[in-house]
Amino acid sequence: MYSFNNDYSEGAHPDIMEALMRTNMEQTGGYSLDTYTEEAIHNMKNLINCQNADIHLLVGGTQTNLTALSAFLRPHHAIIAASTAHIAVHETGAIEATGHKVIIHPTDDGKLNVNHIRECYEAHTDEHMVKPKLVYISNPTELGTIYSKAELEEISCYCKENQLFLYLDGARMASALTAIGNDIALSDYAKYTDAFYIGGTKSGALFGEALVICNDNLKEDFRYHIKQKGGMLAKGRLLAIQFNTLFTNHLYETLGEHSNKMAYKLKEGITSLGYRFLVDSQTNQQFPIFPNNVIIQLEKEFLFSFQAKIDENHSAIRLVTSWATREDKVEKFIEVLRNCK
Amino acid sequence: MYSFNNDYSEGAHPDIMEALMRTNMEQTGGYSLDTYTEEAIHNMKNLINCQNADIHLLVGGTQTNLTALSAFLRPHHAIIAASTAHIAVHETGAIEATGHKVIIHPTDDGKLNVNHIRECYEAHTDEHMVKPKLVYISNPTELGTIYSKAELEEISCYCKENQLFLYLDGARMASALTAIGNDIALSDYAKYTDAFYIGGTKSGALFGEALVICNDNLKEDFRYHIKQKGGMLAKGRLLAIQFNTLFTNHLYETLGEHSNKMAYKLKEGITSLGYRFLVDSQTNQQFPIFPNNVIIQLEKEFLFSFQAKIDENHSAIRLVTSWATREDKVEKFIEVLRNCK
Amino acid sequence: MYSFNNDYSEGAHPDIMEALMRTNMEQTGGYSLDTYTEEAIHNMKNLINCQNADIHLLVGGTQTNLTALSAFLRPHHAIIAASTAHIAVHETGAIEATGHKVIIHPTDDGKLNVNHIRECYEAHTDEHMVKPKLVYISNPTELGTIYSKAELEEISCYCKENQLFLYLDGARMASALTAIGNDIALSDYAKYTDAFYIGGTKSGALFGEALVICNDNLKEDFRYHIKQKGGMLAKGRLLAIQFNTLFTNHLYETLGEHSNKMAYKLKEGITSLGYRFLVDSQTNQQFPIFPNNVIIQLEKEFLFSFQAKIDENHSAIRLVTSWATREDKVEKFIEVLRNCK
Amino acid sequence: MYSFNNDYSEGAHPDIMEALMRTNMEQTGGYSLDTYTEEAIHNMKNLINCQNADIHLLVGGTQTNLTALSAFLRPHHAIIAASTAHIAVHETGAIEATGHKVIIHPTDDGKLNVNHIRECYEAHTDEHMVKPKLVYISNPTELGTIYSKAELEEISCYCKENQLFLYLDGARMASALTAIGNDIALSDYAKYTDAFYIGGTKSGALFGEALVICNDNLKEDFRYHIKQKGGMLAKGRLLAIQFNTLFTNHLYETLGEHSNKMAYKLKEGITSLGYRFLVDSQTNQQFPIFPNNVIIQLEKEFLFSFQAKIDENHSAIRLVTSWATREDKVEKFIEVLRNCK
Repeated sequence: MYSFNNDYSEGAHPDIMEALMRTNMEQTGGYSLDTYTEEAIHNMKNLINCQNADIHLLVGGTQTNLTALSAFLRPHHAIIAASTAHIAVHETGAIEATGHKVIIHPTDDGKLNVNHIRECYEAHTDEHMVKPKLVYISNPTELGTIYSKAELEEISCYCKENQLFLYLDGARMASALTAIGNDIALSDYAKYTDAFYIGGTKSGALFGEALVICNDNLKEDFRYHIKQKGGMLAKGRLLAIQFNTLFTNHLYETLGEHSNKMAYKLKEGITSLGYRFLVDSQTNQQFPIFPNNVIIQLEKEFLFSFQAKIDENHSAIRLVTSWATREDKVEKFIEVLRNCK
Repeated sequence: MYSFNNDYSEGAHPDIMEALMRTNMEQTGGYSLDTYTEEAIHNMKNLINCQNADIHLLVGGTQTNLTALSAFLRPHHAIIAASTAHIAVHETGAIEATGHKVIIHPTDDGKLNVNHIRECYEAHTDEHMVKPKLVYISNPTELGTIYSKAELEEISCYCKENQLFLYLDGARMASALTAIGNDIALSDYAKYTDAFYIGGTKSGALFGEALVICNDNLKEDFRYHIKQKGGMLAKGRLLAIQFNTLFTNHLYETLGEHSNKMAYKLKEGITSLGYRFLVDSQTNQQFPIFPNNVIIQLEKEFLFSFQAKIDENHSAIRLVTSWATREDKVEKFIEVLRNCK
Repeated sequence: MYSFNNDYSEGAHPDIMEALMRTNMEQTGGYSLDTYTEEAIHNMKNLINCQNADIHLLVGGTQTNLTALSAFLRPHHAIIAASTAHIAVHETGAIEATGHKVIIHPTDDGKLNVNHIRECYEAHTDEHMVKPKLVYISNPTELGTIYSKAELEEISCYCKENQLFLYLDGARMASALTAIGNDIALSDYAKYTDAFYIGGTKSGALFGEALVICNDNLKEDFRYHIKQKGGMLAKGRLLAIQFNTLFTNHLYETLGEHSNKMAYKLKEGITSLGYRFLVDSQTNQQFPIFPNNVIIQLEKEFLFSFQAKIDENHSAIRLVTSWATREDKVEKFIEVLRNCK
Repeated sequence: MYSFNNDYSEGAHPDIMEALMRTNMEQTGGYSLDTYTEEAIHNMKNLINCQNADIHLLVGGTQTNLTALSAFLRPHHAIIAASTAHIAVHETGAIEATGHKVIIHPTDDGKLNVNHIRECYEAHTDEHMVKPKLVYISNPTELGTIYSKAELEEISCYCKENQLFLYLDGARMASALTAIGNDIALSDYAKYTDAFYIGGTKSGALFGEALVICNDNLKEDFRYHIKQKGGMLAKGRLLAIQFNTLFTNHLYETLGEHSNKMAYKLKEGITSLGYRFLVDSQTNQQFPIFPNNVIIQLEKEFLFSFQAKIDENHSAIRLVTSWATREDKVEKFIEVLRNCK
């Protein structure tokens, strides 16, 4: 069985493992107060072209989201998000558990736009309702789609005009950065958002997400929040060593490119066999629609997850590629699919 | 500079790194739904001699404490702890952030006893006060002292009689298990507590704590709580592979023994030079009292932390040893101390 | 200006004021530990025909909802509600502030049905999502519609089968109980729900809601939750004296009937003038649709609130009647409407 | 049986009841958006000599404390309070339920001083601990003692120097304002604190506390917090009408004076019979120490509460007087005491 189930099935890229091995017996300060972390933050500030940012390294995505959002908001503040957003669906109410409502808006393709945001914002008019204060988007979205720079800028403008913070979840940012059609550079995220995170877990690290806080008003005492929410790793250097490796010789982009290349190969092969997709994804998640009996045959050799029922006889599945996806297995998938009756 | 600052200055024991390398490119299920985790849990159930326990692997101690305690308690429930307890002092109000009061009681040596617990319990008499529902202890304590089996049993009995849950924080359990004078076996923890955790971070793992839930009433839906609080590691097998290594060939105990041996060597050397200690610790944290000018001299060659002011001219410091502490450095410390004027 | 803005524009029914005056200088125990409260609870148990219920008197609706729901649920539990539900829209995120997600479903008329509930329930399948545990409905709904006994029973059955608690918000229950077409008796609420509240604030009391907990598993320590959430009134007897008055000689029903009678008179008059309604309400809130220029003319003599934009030239408004609504003012409203051009 | 159990055994002062009756059938806006509330706030700003303050009327003390403190603080902020403080002991963990730790310091007499505050403040040094941000005091304290203006000013200065907010709970402020030896005027509270509340419930109102926010940084969106925490009374004018009555013709001070006069009469009578007190209270709570057999005899005719065990044979009790305490009952108490054997 080969798994297209997610992008965290394997360990880490060998360069990362090697770096962890090499530094293993060194003594450093705990809790991210070490020179590796200093170095990682220094390098990342250059990469995002924002010397003024505060950068914090955390273990996982839900932890990063809940820590950041609860630190940024006052108790009556709410978040606007797509109804498919990770925080809205797949984080077990982590945001609500910190006390904040997530206001959701349906979208066609996982992408929130200014009209959606405006509708949510304007519906909240007085103190009997929550006060929308932060817009949450992710790039790529949960459906693999990506924002254009113009779209990101437009959202950013609307947020600034209405005193809304803009937060971007970059769990799969490596794939977005290297997707066909992408025109958003790393430095653009620092320019257009108040905070965002650069995902490591799904892009070749054992674990780790780099939270970048761009808005000065959101920086104060952030380490207190990390500790309080249980996200401060004792051996914090493990995070830094991984990110340093990812940002050496463009490894991060290289891994993102590979995951996209494998996704595009799947997409092309599936398309050429006459199948359609739930949504037109440019990144490492693809959502082909198959007859249910085809899915049953595919399941005999591959792991993947169910995405949506299309009709009585058809379903969309989710195929995820990663930095570690083997090209021969992609080819095998297409071959098996071709032979399905 | 050699650091006695804490027991998480280095990476992991080489056997752990080797195991992570060996399994790195395997595909497994995410979120601790993998065969390594199954194996780790199977092994640990045998070790604690409790087939009925639920075991969950989490990344760090604060995360484990806040997830467990908030899952176990209803909103009006409070926790009884020593005033020096980790949750009371060093977790940035993580427990209160989940809504629960920590009722504290002073102790001489970090050890909570039945009299302390009773006093707290009986002081809370009606619905205008919180309702004490869980007793938090750690072994070893924050001051390096350990409980005897009789003491643990006595606390356990009191808790059972009064419908209080007993929770034990085992962040440094490897040191407690192998301390001179210890008579509490791993299986006793399962017998006498409602839940406890076996610490990995401070005992040779890169990170990781194994939470053992013994009381059936506390088990339901626990994975929801892990996810909601941001503690569910995507590549959960990393935790399992580490614990499997620690519990192969008694590595866990071996590492605990080494940390104690180094601590005892420090203790003996310091004692033989005529210095006293803040508290009589049997484990890998030692709290010698030195003249301030001696401390200044020691600081030139060693890292350690300040513990308490004794008088105008004397302070207690904290020296922490670990599985990785080098014996030559311990000898060097004593030698430097001997030469202090 | 006469107000149809809400059903809490005046003080209390004169009988209530008289009872408060009569008892004013008596000394009683505080915090609802007094004989008036005992009497009120005794009477209400008879009224709902459920000797086994626990009844608590609280000051207001949001307070009652947040106290009950946070007491009933564990941290990962979520609530299913109509998207128009009071807790979803008009309580400033009070429920989320206690840590729980409110899962919303759109409805035509404010009434949640089993299909809605099932869809929400079945969409939540694993520990990466919240766990639906409680269904929140209100009768009448926010749109003035009422449930039939058969509908309530069906929801109740579905909830029981799926271990969901059923909670009913009865802020305007007096109006529901006495609405044309209603077939749900007070005792049915005790039979079909796990908990519900009988509203006083909007039915002739100065303030006060009577929470009835029917499910034994939800009763324990409830007074702790009232106190913790700030809802325990020092002079608790004030609540009891008011409810005793409301439930003497069927005053509660009499007041509900009056509010409905005034609403029906408005409905009839508006209908006879050829206008339509946003929804067919049987209770004391009516939502007529008027041309915008008619609304402007009505606003010169009456207070009411905007409900929804229908098209460029038409809007729905909300007219609320109460125990205190004057019939001559209703007649005046129709007369003014008739004269609108 | 006559009750000295508390200062909320009766209803409201007759002038208040009369005002509620007189205005009962008027229509006003809901949720404190009415002209009575405007008038009350206008008058109170004059009384405290601070036109710039924001004033909100809430129902009860716990509600006021939890709403204010949770609105003022970020998640990692903690509160410093006396170990006897109402929020520390008698509010069922209401503050912790909003996520904040209450750091407690023992005191001799319920009064927190700068040394206590400094000790708590300086013990919290880094992000592994909570960050103290607000000092909570009450005047009078839980033990009936009062602050001098110099003491209040000194605390205020320390707080300002260290960016700590100063919050004062004035549940029994009428008694403090009129106590022998008091030199703090209402306007001083506005001058020296960031926020405080003027208690109504224990000073002749049916219920009600007036929260005064002096610090501009704490004012924004406060009504959202009141609503979210369940404290926004639908018929908000009830609060305003009561406070308007209390502040007409100095009724508030007159009622405070009466409660003190009755307390002093108890104190004098008890002292003259040779008994001592747990603490030297200047206000309407007195804590005499009696032999246990004397207490048993007193309990036959009077209600009061147990305060503390002094030794095997002696206990301190709490006697509370109020605006409604009858002088003949005070005389009776002394007479009964004189006849105790």
